[in-house]
Amino acid sequence: MITNTTAPRRLRYAMVGGGRDSFIGVIHRHAMALDSRYELVAGAFSSTPEKGRASGRDLGLADARNHGTWQALLADELTRSASERVDLVCIVTPNHVHYDVAHAFVDAGFHVVCDKPLVHTSAQAQCLVDLVARRGTLFGVTYNYSGYPMVRQAREMVRTGQLGTLRKVIVEYNQSWLTTQVQSKQADWRTDPARTGIAGAIGDIGTHAEQLAATVTGLEIESICADLTRFVPGRQVDDDGSLLLRFKGGARGVLMASQIAAGAENDLRLRVIGDQGSLMWRQEDPNRLIHTPLGGPLQVLTRGSAWLHDAATQATRTPAGHPEAFIEAFANIYAGVANDLQARLQTGQPASRAQADYPRVDEGARGVRFIEKTVESSRSTLKWTEIDG
Amino acid sequence: MITNTTAPRRLRYAMVGGGRDSFIGVIHRHAMALDSRYELVAGAFSSTPEKGRASGRDLGLADARNHGTWQALLADELTRSASERVDLVCIVTPNHVHYDVAHAFVDAGFHVVCDKPLVHTSAQAQCLVDLVARRGTLFGVTYNYSGYPMVRQAREMVRTGQLGTLRKVIVEYNQSWLTTQVQSKQADWRTDPARTGIAGAIGDIGTHAEQLAATVTGLEIESICADLTRFVPGRQVDDDGSLLLRFKGGARGVLMASQIAAGAENDLRLRVIGDQGSLMWRQEDPNRLIHTPLGGPLQVLTRGSAWLHDAATQATRTPAGHPEAFIEAFANIYAGVANDLQARLQTGQPASRAQADYPRVDEGARGVRFIEKTVESSRSTLKWTEIDG
Amino acid sequence: MITNTTAPRRLRYAMVGGGRDSFIGVIHRHAMALDSRYELVAGAFSSTPEKGRASGRDLGLADARNHGTWQALLADELTRSASERVDLVCIVTPNHVHYDVAHAFVDAGFHVVCDKPLVHTSAQAQCLVDLVARRGTLFGVTYNYSGYPMVRQAREMVRTGQLGTLRKVIVEYNQSWLTTQVQSKQADWRTDPARTGIAGAIGDIGTHAEQLAATVTGLEIESICADLTRFVPGRQVDDDGSLLLRFKGGARGVLMASQIAAGAENDLRLRVIGDQGSLMWRQEDPNRLIHTPLGGPLQVLTRGSAWLHDAATQATRTPAGHPEAFIEAFANIYAGVANDLQARLQTGQPASRAQADYPRVDEGARGVRFIEKTVESSRSTLKWTEIDG
Amino acid sequence: MITNTTAPRRLRYAMVGGGRDSFIGVIHRHAMALDSRYELVAGAFSSTPEKGRASGRDLGLADARNHGTWQALLADELTRSASERVDLVCIVTPNHVHYDVAHAFVDAGFHVVCDKPLVHTSAQAQCLVDLVARRGTLFGVTYNYSGYPMVRQAREMVRTGQLGTLRKVIVEYNQSWLTTQVQSKQADWRTDPARTGIAGAIGDIGTHAEQLAATVTGLEIESICADLTRFVPGRQVDDDGSLLLRFKGGARGVLMASQIAAGAENDLRLRVIGDQGSLMWRQEDPNRLIHTPLGGPLQVLTRGSAWLHDAATQATRTPAGHPEAFIEAFANIYAGVANDLQARLQTGQPASRAQADYPRVDEGARGVRFIEKTVESSRSTLKWTEIDG
Repeated sequence: MITNTTAPRRLRYAMVGGGRDSFIGVIHRHAMALDSRYELVAGAFSSTPEKGRASGRDLGLADARNHGTWQALLADELTRSASERVDLVCIVTPNHVHYDVAHAFVDAGFHVVCDKPLVHTSAQAQCLVDLVARRGTLFGVTYNYSGYPMVRQAREMVRTGQLGTLRKVIVEYNQSWLTTQVQSKQADWRTDPARTGIAGAIGDIGTHAEQLAATVTGLEIESICADLTRFVPGRQVDDDGSLLLRFKGGARGVLMASQIAAGAENDLRLRVIGDQGSLMWRQEDPNRLIHTPLGGPLQVLTRGSAWLHDAATQATRTPAGHPEAFIEAFANIYAGVANDLQARLQTGQPASRAQADYPRVDEGARGVRFIEKTVESSRSTLKWTEIDG
Repeated sequence: MITNTTAPRRLRYAMVGGGRDSFIGVIHRHAMALDSRYELVAGAFSSTPEKGRASGRDLGLADARNHGTWQALLADELTRSASERVDLVCIVTPNHVHYDVAHAFVDAGFHVVCDKPLVHTSAQAQCLVDLVARRGTLFGVTYNYSGYPMVRQAREMVRTGQLGTLRKVIVEYNQSWLTTQVQSKQADWRTDPARTGIAGAIGDIGTHAEQLAATVTGLEIESICADLTRFVPGRQVDDDGSLLLRFKGGARGVLMASQIAAGAENDLRLRVIGDQGSLMWRQEDPNRLIHTPLGGPLQVLTRGSAWLHDAATQATRTPAGHPEAFIEAFANIYAGVANDLQARLQTGQPASRAQADYPRVDEGARGVRFIEKTVESSRSTLKWTEIDG
Repeated sequence: MITNTTAPRRLRYAMVGGGRDSFIGVIHRHAMALDSRYELVAGAFSSTPEKGRASGRDLGLADARNHGTWQALLADELTRSASERVDLVCIVTPNHVHYDVAHAFVDAGFHVVCDKPLVHTSAQAQCLVDLVARRGTLFGVTYNYSGYPMVRQAREMVRTGQLGTLRKVIVEYNQSWLTTQVQSKQADWRTDPARTGIAGAIGDIGTHAEQLAATVTGLEIESICADLTRFVPGRQVDDDGSLLLRFKGGARGVLMASQIAAGAENDLRLRVIGDQGSLMWRQEDPNRLIHTPLGGPLQVLTRGSAWLHDAATQATRTPAGHPEAFIEAFANIYAGVANDLQARLQTGQPASRAQADYPRVDEGARGVRFIEKTVESSRSTLKWTEIDG
Repeated sequence: MITNTTAPRRLRYAMVGGGRDSFIGVIHRHAMALDSRYELVAGAFSSTPEKGRASGRDLGLADARNHGTWQALLADELTRSASERVDLVCIVTPNHVHYDVAHAFVDAGFHVVCDKPLVHTSAQAQCLVDLVARRGTLFGVTYNYSGYPMVRQAREMVRTGQLGTLRKVIVEYNQSWLTTQVQSKQADWRTDPARTGIAGAIGDIGTHAEQLAATVTGLEIESICADLTRFVPGRQVDDDGSLLLRFKGGARGVLMASQIAAGAENDLRLRVIGDQGSLMWRQEDPNRLIHTPLGGPLQVLTRGSAWLHDAATQATRTPAGHPEAFIEAFANIYAGVANDLQARLQTGQPASRAQADYPRVDEGARGVRFIEKTVESSRSTLKWTEIDG
């Protein structure tokens, strides 16, 4: 059970991106506020300096820590004493900015949380992975859906063998908001290859689907067969994609990601089928996990129930029937980061994975590779493209 | 509204297959009985003559019309006068028997309803199509799921443009009953290539999925990319398959069929996405059709409602909220056949398609081709296999 | 598993009521046809002789057995030999006709199935109960919802103690079709006290709710507290009612019946709460029964599953996932009646209750008393009205 | 859309109650933290001084503001300057403590938020209402379920006539956690009349149900007919209750509250039926509101959709499909309070009701009266007990 009663002191953080009219920056701040373990003390909220500063003033930042550029933020932080300097930098900019900012802050020794997809290319991702290893810093990637308690319950059920040997994984992420040509800050950069990267729906939401499946199943994709499509006239990146998957060890899968799925809101869902039973989970109904053991009736496991695995229980704040949702799941990622940060502050050592349950830079890098290989497969006339190829 | 009050006389039918411990024969008989338009008067219920005759006695058949072989049935019928001879022959044997029986009865001028998949090969299917054309007989194929009223509602909504231009079709058919090595009459022949044909799950249920998608969308598959798997050790045909689909005109699709989907019962479901909205239907919840128009809230259309298309209304027997289900949908196929039979009996001409709403031999042939091409694709290293190739 | 393969001969039945534009007569005929155990051979289908005869012709009846009045039907049947005479008379007229017809046929020694509510008054009901006892005839009442397999499963779970001691029963039956002043054959007689009786919604559907609760729980109502309302201006009988219930032994309950519940179709639902768990069932989703054992996750029991009680299994025709619905449940009542009839024909003795699972005349009488006492309670200023008072 | 970017300064609050092993205090703190508009600066967290101080230390409070008793907290606050003194006092103790604390703080001019039920008696409630009026202070009552966006949507739909004239209201609140004799801090005081008050389930959760119905419908209860029961042996207050309701103007209703509803978690649900349509909402599925207009299909309205009323939209933080839940709804109550507080701080005047959407002391008083009258009715042999009697 997560309470907001245990923090020895608030962790100080700076935010890069997330200014006025940002979508995801606000979510990060709600999520970080929820458990009262973080305090926003600095920021560079926009690529337009004046807009960034206005955003910082909205948030009550002192002028001295409200910067026009991330470079200025970095420079200023480096001048600050340990009692003032931020414990964490959160990067919530459009995708194309991630790499430079992340690289600079990690290189300077800062702990970082960065939004997904991590960067534009696997080469960049590998640079970051290596740099993080060299610097020994914390690096989280906000694959927020893996923060849901019932996703963690599913993961533990698979891990402890409750489904037997896995055979099939079906993961989907359907949205409808790009069904037509829309113009908005969010739509603009997410459909512009220069900013969003080589993939559209696959990069924006397909990567969440891949990470969700990997988190729950522990399976590694061996090869993929992708068909990406641009349905809306003039669109420069895919707005729909379907993939066949082959996992190491013989399991099969299907992954679908669509932003033209008229009628869908934020319909991420996962089905995992083993030879002893199956699981089903939907993000829009996140407090429930459907488990059908082979030879027994379907069961609905609910968040907060007494019979769940510890990893699920530890990620809840309210009793069963008092639903938690998107922001709480997001906050669970940040709770894991906070645990890790505090362990490092107190002991100089990272927390254990069990204590600090959040996606790391290597998952971010795997996600980038998945996107690249999906695009490669989609262009290929051969059925299978190997992930490690 | 279907009532059982309109038949001028009961239509006489013979059944081939469907003896003791048959699954589908019983269903056909319930479905044919429901509306009181048919009367079972003859049969050859088993490939084991004595078992067949015992089955016929169970059903109250006169000995003279209760035959040990279908050949005897055919010979006897040909001796009968018009006032005794059956109006229809129903073939509900295992797949490998369909062709010979169907060919013989059509060739002799009988009207036939045959279970799916129609036959083992496209060559056989084409022979039947040609023969039916030459003989001018009625030939129905019991793709029973297209008999559901809300499937017909969906078809009409697509046809009249309520979804706009179709973009994506996702159709699934998940069962769990072959998750392990089972031994039973049903399992035995359905996993034996000599009887079931070259495909397992794809032939048994994937063909239903394909036909459901085709019925509702009216789209033609251009090319497929299939991955068929045999999960259960020793199994000789696929028990799981996933396909990417490309339709003529640019729509995309995914088709999944699995008989090792632990937890699934008879989970056939369809989603159709257009640029103006989407539809979703599930066989296990068949009285409801989910429609989400672009830019408006999700609507749940229910069978029996005043605002449905005529084709749906004409396929219902009970008011909204008084659910109809599997047998009634099956009966709707036979209601279409009965309308056609009666038109032929009364006028010498077939009924119109609107009056006689049931799948014909050409749909059966298309289904056989789909199965063949799926198996071909699954063996190919190329991504796309053209359906017409 | 019910099949249509076991009848030694078709049972002959006559129908009283159920002519053209009847709702429920058609349902009875579909239900009786489904399993091929009954054959309609005679009838008096309307209080308007010419309309009745036209209806009989629609149904293919011979003129000699197609009567203008039920009195003529009775007179004719009494002249017929045992090999022609009907085995059963089905009464599906408006309520006010039930008593006279039922009394006359029972008195003449006929087996009868009568629609609900049985009759208008408890005095009439008691006469029928006594007469049936004296004549030793079969008398079924078509409380059709108790024919659903999962209702029988629920009954058996309660009976075998799976819920522990029952504490609370909530039963509702919501419809919307009388939300406004409608004019139709169905609406007209159901809102006319001369024909429908002293109660509207409570008599038409509340009695189903009471019978469903009684069937599943086995509890007897001790006292009731009712509030009946006429919402639609000019309506002469209640169109909405809510009741508090006290059962013998201490359980409590709530019963609601409404025909002005805008949005509801045929929303009959039951919840049963014991000290060891609870059950929930909805008629519009009839293949599923929700069971939540105390201290364990919610389970969804599905019709056709291997782990159900025999009484449920014996009332199914199709495997799990191949849904059955309203007509099949109705047919299960008639299957019980057929078992009883055949036992009587073959052995001269009634079948056991387990073999012949259908509601009897005493349940019909209890339903009439429930309606009377509900109206009495609604008029009372005292809180509790005793059922036996 | 609620963001956490607009606060001019954090509002300072003190908490009374909510120490270690409290359930609801933690929820209040999460809810107040979510939008970054509040800061906890003082408290008296327990009736056991040492436990209270330990709790305050957990929360990082300075010793000087971490008090052993609420009297000490009050005394200390009165010595503080305007720049330090708390803006708000939150009372989250067991029920029996509410009155004294609330009275003392309001009398001293503090703004207060108090948990429900407000106090033990209507006399106490009236004293508080009068005192708040005299002091001109803000007084919120955390009927948190009225903070859900889709509850506000429902309220606006009723208010603007989308359901026509209301006819029937069905509200239920089912929990199972007191099915057996449990011993825990929560269970102990909630089943002890000295602390919880004269009612058990009705006081703890029935009052939420009443307030939810009142919020959405705007109807006033005229008279009630209650049946309260103590099912668990030895229990001193009701653990289950069912009520018939009559509203001024003619609408009818049913209210159920149970804490022995085995299988239920926190199952608060509301149905509102008008002559033009109906609404249905469930707390455990809070992002959806089911609307069935008369004569049209059922619609599922989802939080975050473009077509909602402003009052719903203003209470959301995330887009459609990114679910919000219990804590966010709770935070919406506190957002309304914060708007009111800031208006008072900036202008000396309260915010408008539309700007400051939260339940006030008069709703708390109405809730207390509802509880009293329910107990009175339950003891009465007369059917109806007037609320104003």
